[in-house]
Amino acid sequence: MARGVTRRVVAWLLALALAACAGGPPSAAPDPLPSWQPGPARTAILDFVRDVTTAGAPTFVPPAQRIAVFDNDGTLWTESPQYTQVLFMLEQVEAAAPRHPEWRADPAFQALAAHDEAALKAAGQDRLMALLFQASSGMTTEAYDRAIRDWLASARSPKFGRPYTELVYQPQLELLRYLRANGFRTWIVTGGTIEFVRPFSEAVYGIPPEQVVGSTQAVRYAQADGAMALVREPRLEFNDDGPGKPVGIYRQIGRRPILAFGNSDGDLQMLQYTTDGPGRTLGLVVHHDDAAREAAYDRQSAVGRLDKAWDEAAAHGWIVVSMKTDWKQLFPAGP
Amino acid sequence: MARGVTRRVVAWLLALALAACAGGPPSAAPDPLPSWQPGPARTAILDFVRDVTTAGAPTFVPPAQRIAVFDNDGTLWTESPQYTQVLFMLEQVEAAAPRHPEWRADPAFQALAAHDEAALKAAGQDRLMALLFQASSGMTTEAYDRAIRDWLASARSPKFGRPYTELVYQPQLELLRYLRANGFRTWIVTGGTIEFVRPFSEAVYGIPPEQVVGSTQAVRYAQADGAMALVREPRLEFNDDGPGKPVGIYRQIGRRPILAFGNSDGDLQMLQYTTDGPGRTLGLVVHHDDAAREAAYDRQSAVGRLDKAWDEAAAHGWIVVSMKTDWKQLFPAGP
Repeated sequence: MARGVTRRVVAWLLALALAACAGGPPSAAPDPLPSWQPGPARTAILDFVRDVTTAGAPTFVPPAQRIAVFDNDGTLWTESPQYTQVLFMLEQVEAAAPRHPEWRADPAFQALAAHDEAALKAAGQDRLMALLFQASSGMTTEAYDRAIRDWLASARSPKFGRPYTELVYQPQLELLRYLRANGFRTWIVTGGTIEFVRPFSEAVYGIPPEQVVGSTQAVRYAQADGAMALVREPRLEFNDDGPGKPVGIYRQIGRRPILAFGNSDGDLQMLQYTTDGPGRTLGLVVHHDDAAREAAYDRQSAVGRLDKAWDEAAAHGWIVVSMKTDWKQLFPAGP
Repeated sequence: MARGVTRRVVAWLLALALAACAGGPPSAAPDPLPSWQPGPARTAILDFVRDVTTAGAPTFVPPAQRIAVFDNDGTLWTESPQYTQVLFMLEQVEAAAPRHPEWRADPAFQALAAHDEAALKAAGQDRLMALLFQASSGMTTEAYDRAIRDWLASARSPKFGRPYTELVYQPQLELLRYLRANGFRTWIVTGGTIEFVRPFSEAVYGIPPEQVVGSTQAVRYAQADGAMALVREPRLEFNDDGPGKPVGIYRQIGRRPILAFGNSDGDLQMLQYTTDGPGRTLGLVVHHDDAAREAAYDRQSAVGRLDKAWDEAAAHGWIVVSMKTDWKQLFPAGP
């Protein structure tokens, strides 16, 4: 009997040691994509990940080359009814107005201050953009970063009554995690600026700042407040949109992605550059067809227009993901 | 006795399981920096790494913020007697000459073809740079990448009789590995272009392409050879040198480094930006004072001039590393 006990102790100790080593006893794997409705989009994703991770398969891709790129506005978080960064920048213009008395004579600023959309249109988009870039000009990148963090912490979407960082798509959070668990590195490739997305990308998406490719407002290394700092200049330096996206990917990632996920014509070239590459690739496009939960828009929309990229989807075999039918849950549950 | 045996078997099985778990029995750690001579530079590195990795210490830095940036030319590999990329680009000009009959009337090209240094100086650096950028203009980034790989595989340094990718500094290879083993991410921040450094950075330095920040020649996404591709344009888009280095770091890394290693005035602002940051930081400068093994140059050199950054080193507490006395072995042993 003593030996029987000893044997049981041996078995128990071994199991304990091996479990500590392996991280726990084996169990049935939970569904990695619980918010994705069974259907062609979900199947395409699961098949793709299986194909590129199966050692020895002709479709196998080594982990270092498993690069997945995601647009942000309209693909990872809502852009309805307006791009979140534009809302922030418009508020920045109002905040900066006292430092810019010359703006008072500017038709674009007058239209903005009066919330007069027709006058704003008449003033022209170039003049509006100039105001947006002037508003943060002269700020250090650190001060601008604080302004963005403060705004994101306090602003609420009038449409949804929640902070913008909660208006991210639950199925995409699951997909990002699932890809990373399968050896992918996940990148954001956004038409927004790097400064605006980096302050929340790690906490919200699990994507660190260096994996955010985006548009850039020029900065220069110069004296500011008695010390050397990176100081913002009033001009767009790089527009990471449309044909700019493959350029941004090349400059910052240096490898061709094998998966791209977008939602608008601004993602067309990124999708094309990805799926034109050698080997197994996957292109995906969110279609905002969900008026009940978010919004329904495509070919005629001023924000996130999906027109040419939709036409190209069929030709290239990109998967069009219906927000309405493919996504069970849209936003994460509140805190 | 049977129980004694059982007890020994239990102990043996447990040790086996735990060793499998831990990756082997403990042993005395080998010296992580065998090519670094004991002295102030080596001590400064070891102390710094200890300080930022000691949990609970006021100097502790979380792994995500352990960013180390290294210049390439003259810091990680030799730049003597000429920057390696310039040698490559000069050969590219000769190779491209048949496609550019208009060059025949160009004094800079004539001087280059005749290897006439005085005439080249008279033609002016701008004209020479224009030739260098025109030589690869119109090539796809993929064709240019192949040209660089081919050249690096076949070219030999006349001075050292070895491939350029073997003329890397052994003490720095050890330092890069040591930093990564301590949770750092190591980045290259080079005045050279990203295209030139990325093809060898992973194999030689263990630094993947996306962790190479550098100068960029403009590219655009366009038709080439019947398909869409990234095509090179004949202009420098971003000069990642001097005050450009903090800008490149900001744009691509998005965090302020805590360790910077350079060797010339082109690294001054990178060193300053790093060591002006909050918390524990370390700045290091290679001094090429080793005429016997490589070269001795500093304030008067056309390549890798170390003048202002040397003056600033004392004021900022940057460690000046003597190639001659701090580095036991210069280059790795041959294959």
